[in-house]
Amino acid sequence: MATQPAITPSRLDPGCPLLDELRALLGDRLTTSAAVREQHGKDESFHQPVSPDAVAFAESTEEVSEIVKACAKYKVPVIPYGTGTSLEGHVAALQGGVSIDVSRMTEVVEVNPEDLDCTVQAGVTRKALNEYLRDTGLFFPVDPGADASIGGMAATRASGTNAVRYGTMRECVLALTVVLADGRIVRTSRRSRKSAAGYDLTRLFVGSEGTLGVITEVTVRLFGIPEAMTAAVCAFPSVEDAVNAVILTIQSGIPVARIEFVDDMAIKGLNEFSKTDLPVAYTLFYEFHGSDSYAREQAEAAQAIAAEFGGGDFQWATRPEDRNKLWQARHDALYAMIALCPGKKAMATDVCVPISKLAECVVETRQDNEQSAIVAPIVGHVGDGNFHVSYMVDPENQAEVDEASALHDRLVARALAMGGTCTGEHGIGYGKIDYLNAELGEGVSIMRSIKQALDPDNIMNPGKIIRL
Amino acid sequence: MATQPAITPSRLDPGCPLLDELRALLGDRLTTSAAVREQHGKDESFHQPVSPDAVAFAESTEEVSEIVKACAKYKVPVIPYGTGTSLEGHVAALQGGVSIDVSRMTEVVEVNPEDLDCTVQAGVTRKALNEYLRDTGLFFPVDPGADASIGGMAATRASGTNAVRYGTMRECVLALTVVLADGRIVRTSRRSRKSAAGYDLTRLFVGSEGTLGVITEVTVRLFGIPEAMTAAVCAFPSVEDAVNAVILTIQSGIPVARIEFVDDMAIKGLNEFSKTDLPVAYTLFYEFHGSDSYAREQAEAAQAIAAEFGGGDFQWATRPEDRNKLWQARHDALYAMIALCPGKKAMATDVCVPISKLAECVVETRQDNEQSAIVAPIVGHVGDGNFHVSYMVDPENQAEVDEASALHDRLVARALAMGGTCTGEHGIGYGKIDYLNAELGEGVSIMRSIKQALDPDNIMNPGKIIRL
Repeated sequence: MATQPAITPSRLDPGCPLLDELRALLGDRLTTSAAVREQHGKDESFHQPVSPDAVAFAESTEEVSEIVKACAKYKVPVIPYGTGTSLEGHVAALQGGVSIDVSRMTEVVEVNPEDLDCTVQAGVTRKALNEYLRDTGLFFPVDPGADASIGGMAATRASGTNAVRYGTMRECVLALTVVLADGRIVRTSRRSRKSAAGYDLTRLFVGSEGTLGVITEVTVRLFGIPEAMTAAVCAFPSVEDAVNAVILTIQSGIPVARIEFVDDMAIKGLNEFSKTDLPVAYTLFYEFHGSDSYAREQAEAAQAIAAEFGGGDFQWATRPEDRNKLWQARHDALYAMIALCPGKKAMATDVCVPISKLAECVVETRQDNEQSAIVAPIVGHVGDGNFHVSYMVDPENQAEVDEASALHDRLVARALAMGGTCTGEHGIGYGKIDYLNAELGEGVSIMRSIKQALDPDNIMNPGKIIRL
Repeated sequence: MATQPAITPSRLDPGCPLLDELRALLGDRLTTSAAVREQHGKDESFHQPVSPDAVAFAESTEEVSEIVKACAKYKVPVIPYGTGTSLEGHVAALQGGVSIDVSRMTEVVEVNPEDLDCTVQAGVTRKALNEYLRDTGLFFPVDPGADASIGGMAATRASGTNAVRYGTMRECVLALTVVLADGRIVRTSRRSRKSAAGYDLTRLFVGSEGTLGVITEVTVRLFGIPEAMTAAVCAFPSVEDAVNAVILTIQSGIPVARIEFVDDMAIKGLNEFSKTDLPVAYTLFYEFHGSDSYAREQAEAAQAIAAEFGGGDFQWATRPEDRNKLWQARHDALYAMIALCPGKKAMATDVCVPISKLAECVVETRQDNEQSAIVAPIVGHVGDGNFHVSYMVDPENQAEVDEASALHDRLVARALAMGGTCTGEHGIGYGKIDYLNAELGEGVSIMRSIKQALDPDNIMNPGKIIRL
């Protein structure tokens, strides 16, 4: 199992007037209820949750600024909270402090359809945004599965199924409003598509996981809803065949909107959980976007490649309801595995490798997993070289946990040895700090210098990304 | 005219043993010849050049590290130099110091055709790289016009004509090797397409203009050479019509590879300088990439939009030699204007606005320029909302210089008021520091904190981006 937190939070001094000050600011939007605190210290990961001392429900950037200023005065940690769907313990209050919940910051501040962008408060979720945009002919493409907040997605550099075509939050965020460790409010960039104006502050905060500031507003790119969107499923005789079909599809420059690998174990879970009837096999899920003729051209090219690698017929899902059902099933893969393995929890992780190494990495990982007693389905955003392994373990069974941890260590080591990264999209949180050190070495010292420069008292989500 | 440098460089103390140490390291690759120094303090901008005290020709990352360590020991500035084609005084040795010339670092370290990426030393130019890649079926798309070094392009976040389709250096750089202010060598990222592993160090250094470190190796994305590439030229009855055709083309999601605006004045210059015979009019240059059928589909859609705005017939350039001639003419627009205006130099600048504001911004800028005596052609990468104005002035004529500076100030103020940026691609250098402050305000204080954290003695290209 990854790092356990040192649960010795420097809890608030009983004499500290911080909570009184925050209550004066927020009224009953400041709470110390045990249930709310517990919920806010816990994400969807297998990491130990740690409750904050209080939860502050903010409604504006200015309020976040006031909360941070008050916390800074007493050097009390601040942990931003969106929907709690992070996967590396990002919201755990490792050193106590105040969780700033932005889920009530749900205003769509402006939509600029002509510029294909919009600005939202951090608590707007991706589904709520797309619902809001429905009549504009535009959509926001980044889709990590969970209905996460846009602020949280920016903070963790989220991506997901259609990053292969539309990019991740790295590419899709144009500008941010951020509250710094001393409460100052900063806008990181203008709205223009390009800029060479100084350091790339936007990209600095995207993926900083709340350790440099609290993201309160996000300007994102939007895209026109394509004329045609068709999805398809195709079964392959082996892992290698499926993954090699992906590699050739990407190398051929076919701009697939999604290309997802789901292994036989995960398909079994999907069929039971989502009432699908997919053949239990190594499977690719595709989606093609474009004009009618261009989407067809892409699909034909991808089919020809699949056939080269022994892929079966494409099972098409063209009607919106069928496409939605298919992708919902894919997104529910993790929940499906949990349902399939009663008494087990999922140690979910992800790595990303250069695509030329993908088949080798997936095959070796499966072989390693199969030699253990741990069930470990693999699914992945394989067009980017990114895949997930979910080690299904009974958290009370230490031997199982240890075995899964050893498999996990070897997975990350394998990905790093192939030129990959310890996380394509889940982030570091407090679960992958050692892996980050292994990956970047001296690079982490730059991160540490930046962290210390922007947050000298280490109050911004301390204990995440960097150990000080 | 933009900021004049305070030419009071703290020249090397005659007793300082730095040059002896560098000579021991580099032999005759360390030079203090007046001609070489002068060349290295000067870029293609209208800003005052300032010579370094010495020029060190490095041949490896390790040598750059040794040079920086030596300079750090004596707190002597370090100014990286690629091809000297920057446009905001980036290479001027404002406080003296050692210019590190990387132009001999021309090794293509590795090409990974399967992963569509390659790693080059910083001195490899974009044309040399594409020449090297010729037989692979791949190309490196970022094209700022000048045959700049890839290291310099990364350092200035360069973009250019086909950024609208393939992205700028922000999107096309996957990883960097950087020498920090104390000589440490750091790799910013792995080669995988995505990563959520901590702060985005790659994007931090892309666009940092040598102020945080010296870039010595760059891993960039490559793209398959499309099956079909066709270019076309189309004349429009007015600026508004041309720009509105661009806006609708982009909003319609047509993935043009290039879409460039050239105004009537610039066309006149082009025709004389490049022996083209284009109608003297407000003109768009297009390029379409894709399969034969998809490139044709894009071209037809773009033509239909052009026709809506009174555009004339498309003049096609399909053969490679015709396309090259067309784009070379476009790239030579600045030189053409200089040739057209004997005795004048170009104060070249660029701004970038949200595309919905582009017509308004270009039209108002032309009106403002036309009320002055200054000839000021406009060309631009209009698909991104990015355009260039070249104020043609006699540098000896102070009234002219002042008038151009006032026009320039109003141009930037106009772009900022429209939600744009003071530079889409030229960067800040020492010419646009005040504009950057106007654009980002408090954001600049974050840049300052980072600069001070990573370069406490302010030896890395001091006086650029940030005033300390």
